[in-house]
Formats: sequence, C-alpha cells, structure tokens
Amino acid sequence: MIDPRVVDTFERCRGRSPLLVIDIDRVRERYEALVAALPDATVYYAVKANPHPDILRCLIDLGSHFDVASIGEVTQCLDVGATPERLSFGNTVKKEGAIARAFDLGVRRYAFDCDGELDKLIAAAPGSIAFCRILCDGLGAAWPLSRKFGCAPDLAADMLRKAAANGLRPGISFHVGSQQFDVDAWDRALATVADLRAELRADGIELELVNLGGGLPGTYRETTPAIDLYGKAIAHALHRRLGPSLPAEVLIEPGRFLVADAGVLGAEVVTVARKTSYDEHRWVYLDVGMFSGLAEVMDEAIRYRIVTERDGPTGPVVLAGPTCDSADVLYQRYEYQLPLALAPGDRVFLLSAGAYSATYSTVGFNGFPPLDVEVVR
Amino acid sequence: MIDPRVVDTFERCRGRSPLLVIDIDRVRERYEALVAALPDATVYYAVKANPHPDILRCLIDLGSHFDVASIGEVTQCLDVGATPERLSFGNTVKKEGAIARAFDLGVRRYAFDCDGELDKLIAAAPGSIAFCRILCDGLGAAWPLSRKFGCAPDLAADMLRKAAANGLRPGISFHVGSQQFDVDAWDRALATVADLRAELRADGIELELVNLGGGLPGTYRETTPAIDLYGKAIAHALHRRLGPSLPAEVLIEPGRFLVADAGVLGAEVVTVARKTSYDEHRWVYLDVGMFSGLAEVMDEAIRYRIVTERDGPTGPVVLAGPTCDSADVLYQRYEYQLPLALAPGDRVFLLSAGAYSATYSTVGFNGFPPLDVEVVR
Repeated sequence: MIDPRVVDTFERCRGRSPLLVIDIDRVRERYEALVAALPDATVYYAVKANPHPDILRCLIDLGSHFDVASIGEVTQCLDVGATPERLSFGNTVKKEGAIARAFDLGVRRYAFDCDGELDKLIAAAPGSIAFCRILCDGLGAAWPLSRKFGCAPDLAADMLRKAAANGLRPGISFHVGSQQFDVDAWDRALATVADLRAELRADGIELELVNLGGGLPGTYRETTPAIDLYGKAIAHALHRRLGPSLPAEVLIEPGRFLVADAGVLGAEVVTVARKTSYDEHRWVYLDVGMFSGLAEVMDEAIRYRIVTERDGPTGPVVLAGPTCDSADVLYQRYEYQLPLALAPGDRVFLLSAGAYSATYSTVGFNGFPPLDVEVVR
Repeated sequence: MIDPRVVDTFERCRGRSPLLVIDIDRVRERYEALVAALPDATVYYAVKANPHPDILRCLIDLGSHFDVASIGEVTQCLDVGATPERLSFGNTVKKEGAIARAFDLGVRRYAFDCDGELDKLIAAAPGSIAFCRILCDGLGAAWPLSRKFGCAPDLAADMLRKAAANGLRPGISFHVGSQQFDVDAWDRALATVADLRAELRADGIELELVNLGGGLPGTYRETTPAIDLYGKAIAHALHRRLGPSLPAEVLIEPGRFLVADAGVLGAEVVTVARKTSYDEHRWVYLDVGMFSGLAEVMDEAIRYRIVTERDGPTGPVVLAGPTCDSADVLYQRYEYQLPLALAPGDRVFLLSAGAYSATYSTVGFNGFPPLDVEVVR
C-alpha cells in the first residue's frame, strides 16, 4: 500500500516521529494525469496545499503555473525559479501594498470579489487580468465552502464592467468546494459563467479568463471518482457552456489533487487508554494531532486512511493528538478500527497526508515542534 | 479601555500588523490577585497558554510553579531559570523517553489517567508524585472538555493502589473545563476526590496531592465572575470536602486567567465586502485569523471583545481571516457590530488575546508568517 521507497525513507529516519514523507514522483504522476485528462485548462497549482520547494521545482519543470495566496507565496515561487507570468494571485483578500509588490514583481493575474478589492486592482495593478470570483453552491463537496469568497453574479457583472472601463482585463472564477465528489458541479457553475459572459458581451466586453478553481480530490477513506471522469465532465461542461470558442485562458487550480496522495505521515502511538471499566472504545493517542499538521481533521472533514504494522483482530478506537488541548481529537464520531494489539511505540501511517498538513503546523503549541518533512524521489 | 503603555507600543510598532502586545504588569496583577483569593493552593502556571520567556521570568520571580505539557516546555522553563522542583508534567499523554528525560532533569510530579501511562511512570519516574486525572462533568464551561483526559473514578482507585504499591506517591487531578463560569464546579469534582481519598485511606494509602486544574476565566464578551468569588467558592469546597487536614499539596493550574487579559492583538482591516445586493451583513476581513493566532475562535467558542478607532453608527458584520481557507472565519453565527465607516487599513484591537494565541500560529499557512509579538512592562 505504501511505496517501497517511502517505506525505506521511514526506516532510514527511525527516531524522527512524526514525519511527513513526500514522494515527488507521485506529484509528477498526478500532474501528468490531470493534464492528459483535461487538456483544455492550464494548471495553476494551489501553492497553499504544500509549498515545499521540491514540489514547486518539480512542477516548474513540468510547465505548471501557480495559484498564490499571499505575497509570501509569490516570493516562494519566484525564489525557486517560477517566472511571474506563471503566477495568479488568487486570494480575494489582499492588502493594497501586497498587490503593488506583486505587480512590481511582474504578476498580472488577480482575483477579487468586492468593490473595495477591485479599486485596489485599478490603483495598483493597471492593465492586469482581474477575475471576479462568484458564489457557487458547493453541493456535493466534503467541505462546502462558506460564503467567505465570491459574490452574487449580478454584483460580478457590475464590477466586471467597471474593471473593463478602468483598463483591467475581465475574467471570472469560482470554486465548487474542496474534495468535490460530484463531477457535474462544474457544469452548474459554468452555466452561471455563460450567463455573465452573454451579459457582458451585450456591452461589448469579452471575458478573457475563466478560472475553474479547485475541488479535485485526494484519496481518503471514501471512494473518489477517477481523474478521467472529472476531465470528461469538466471538458463537456466547458464546451457546452462556453463553446465553441472558449475564453483565451482557462485555468484550473488543483492543490489537494496534486500533492495529497504524495504524502505519507508516519506517527507513533504514545498511549492506549480505556476511560471506564466497560467502554468498548480504546483511546489511541498519537504523537501528531490537530496542532502539528492534521488541522484538516477539524469537524472530522478529512478522514485519512490509516495503516499500522500490527496484524490480528481489530476494535473501535477514538483517535487523539498529543497536546493538552481537548479539541485535539482526530476522530471520535467517525469510526476507526485498529488492531487490538496496538501498543505504545507502534508506528501508524496516515496515507494521502501531503496536502494542508506541514504548513498547518503550529509554531510550537504545547512545546511540540512543527511537523518534520522528508522528500523522496 | 486599552492601557496607554500598550497603545504607545502599537504606535511605536506601526507597520507591524498583526501584532500581539503582552503587558507583563497585567500578568503580575493577575497572579497576585489569584494568590490573595486562594491562599490554600500553589499556583502552577499552565505554560501552554503562553510560553513567552518574559512571562515565564515574571512568574518565576513571583514564586509561581509551572504546569508543563511536553519535554519542550520543561526545557523552556528550565532555560529561563525555573528549578525542576517547581515543575509538574501535567500532560497525561507522554512518551516514556520524555518522562525519563524530565526525571533526569529533576521533575518529580507527573499526571496519568490510564494503566499504560502508570506503567511508564513506575519504570521511568520512581518515587515521584503520580497524580491520576479523573473525568469531570465540565458543566458550565465555555469549552466542556471531551473525554480526552481523565478516567472513571473506580479505575483511578485501582491505579492509585498500584501506584502506591510501586513506590509512587499518589495524587488526584481533575479539570472542570476551560473558561468555567460556574464557581461551584470545583465542589462537585472535590466530592469525588473525597470519596476516592476515603476509599484509599481504608487501604492505608494517603493522597499527597490534589490538583484543582484550570478553568479560571479570561475576560471576553460574557460577564465573568470576579476572582474573589472563585477563591471563596473553591476554598469553601476544599475545606468542606477535604478538611480539616488538606492533602500536603494543593495545586491550581491557571493558564488563561493569568495571561489572556495581558494581551491585546492589533490587526488591520484588509477588505470590507458585501456578498449580494441585499445583504445587511458586511464581511470584514482582517489580517489575522484562525491560522495565525486565533485558533480559539474555532466553533466561535472564545468571543473576543473588539474595538476599533472609528466612531459613529454600527452594523452587523461577519468577521473572517486573510487566508484562502473557507474555515478561516472568526464569527459568523455570533453577532458582532462594527462601525459602518470601517474601511481597509483601519486598525482593530482584540482584547484579552494573550492566551492560546501566538503559539497556536501556523508556521506559514498561505504564506503568512506566525503572529508577531511585542512585550511591554
């Protein structure tokens, strides 16, 4: 189940626990599979999923572009050799100083979703592509997004007219929700994009960019559709809604899809406890938890596949992290079964832990260091 | 509302945002108020609340002891001059290697709540005080603790007999729940402690330590009882349940109470947005959020008091952080009202933000750096 090179790395690094091992070859495989499945779209890797420099370098070599969330991520990409024309500043929440700095560095694609942000782009990023993020229903996603990002389509139309009138080049983006299992979700969003495109065309304004956002899945405990299916469904929706002549730029922003499956997180069992005399559940405490890399277990939204080195019969467990924080519980409602023989010192592996893990680590909550990382290729 | 020295510090540090300013004088005041209110108990500061070395040094000078959660926190305390006899290793989840290292360094008080942890203490911390954490109802707490820590009292009795039989010195701890507003919560827990004490005495075993845990509040939006009231209620409960001769050591482990009110977090408004044409709520995005120091807004459990520099009429807002993560929303269900004139670049201050903030910051999620800190005294 775990690649032998990754197993070897854990053997070589015994004593370093918890440890995230990232397999760069898997990143390459996923990138190539996505490009083959969806040739219409340019891949902008969502750097926030995992900004490890080796991942960025691998993707630069493969020709990937990059979706960045902050000026910090802009410089992380440039520092390892990405050119600024490959970057898209996809966070709708930006200080004007950050926009000005990114513009000085050569970045020419920016997201916005409200009038205040548009004004900043008019002032600090003249002539750039400004894509407006619209609200999207998020039905079918493991993490339906809140209304934090995006605006109602009628506001988008007004703002894109204003953008065009002020010399910005208009685009639209949306996000169907992270870990989206409904491959038709893009079609529903693109229907709205098509309406907006027609409305703008009536005013002589042509959309230059459509950004399909993220949502492609990592492989957790649930069965996930194959990437080919996503590719076919999205391509069909694109041509149905925006064909025959697609906008000049069609972007997709995978994060999780490219890096989740490339990571295996090795942890150690610290304690196995029973809370009362008659509870069938054991509490299993690992040396990694919500504050040292597993923030995505919040509300048990992401359910990692977990393997151990023990055989034999299993029983139900509650899984928790090592800190004194009572919120640092990984899985309590969602049932996990682990070997009855599991004991302190045993190793446990969380699969597909390459996304939203290392950089989510706290700087040192409870005196525990951030997640340690090792790369294999 | 904000101490002038703190205001001056923010002025001097303009351009550094977000910034947490910690007022060491407030830590001293809170420590002295607690000692005056509850002279029966020795204060063990819960280092995890804020391990800033200046806070630790201030508390060392005042005579405080320290509750530590990891070997990392043991060394943080020793490095700034705490002696090991002032430390209590209060995390029930510990690798045996961490116990052995703490024991070598001179630490002689350890928590446990299951048989496996007790075995580690027998092996690695001979002759130490071993206090068993019991489950407690947590009624009335803003954050009722999960069952992550503690065991049923019948298991505690069995394990404390085993501890005594193996040369460890028995104690009991409990935790009434963080931000506990019911000053009688300690009485209910101490009733259980008294039962256990009587049960053990029948076997000739004397409890050497009772640990009253945490739960004393910081000052957030809700009205909180004064510390004198907590002191009276806890002292009354102690003598009622465990008098006339109290156990040799009575500990209390305040974290939040000592440092929350000592911190003011200054942030900047990045964006003010309306999502639809007819929504009365504005979305206000700050440059600080759940991943850069405000993890306690999870489930909106801790509701900070927020002040701005703007006057005039107010209206309802949703408050969110700066990252591309849709979970990075501070307050959505709980209503906040902020000035209608609020605009990007305005400063916003979160009061009582000194606990569980800086060390909860992620190492760099979305490319944003950890929370910046400045100390005033």
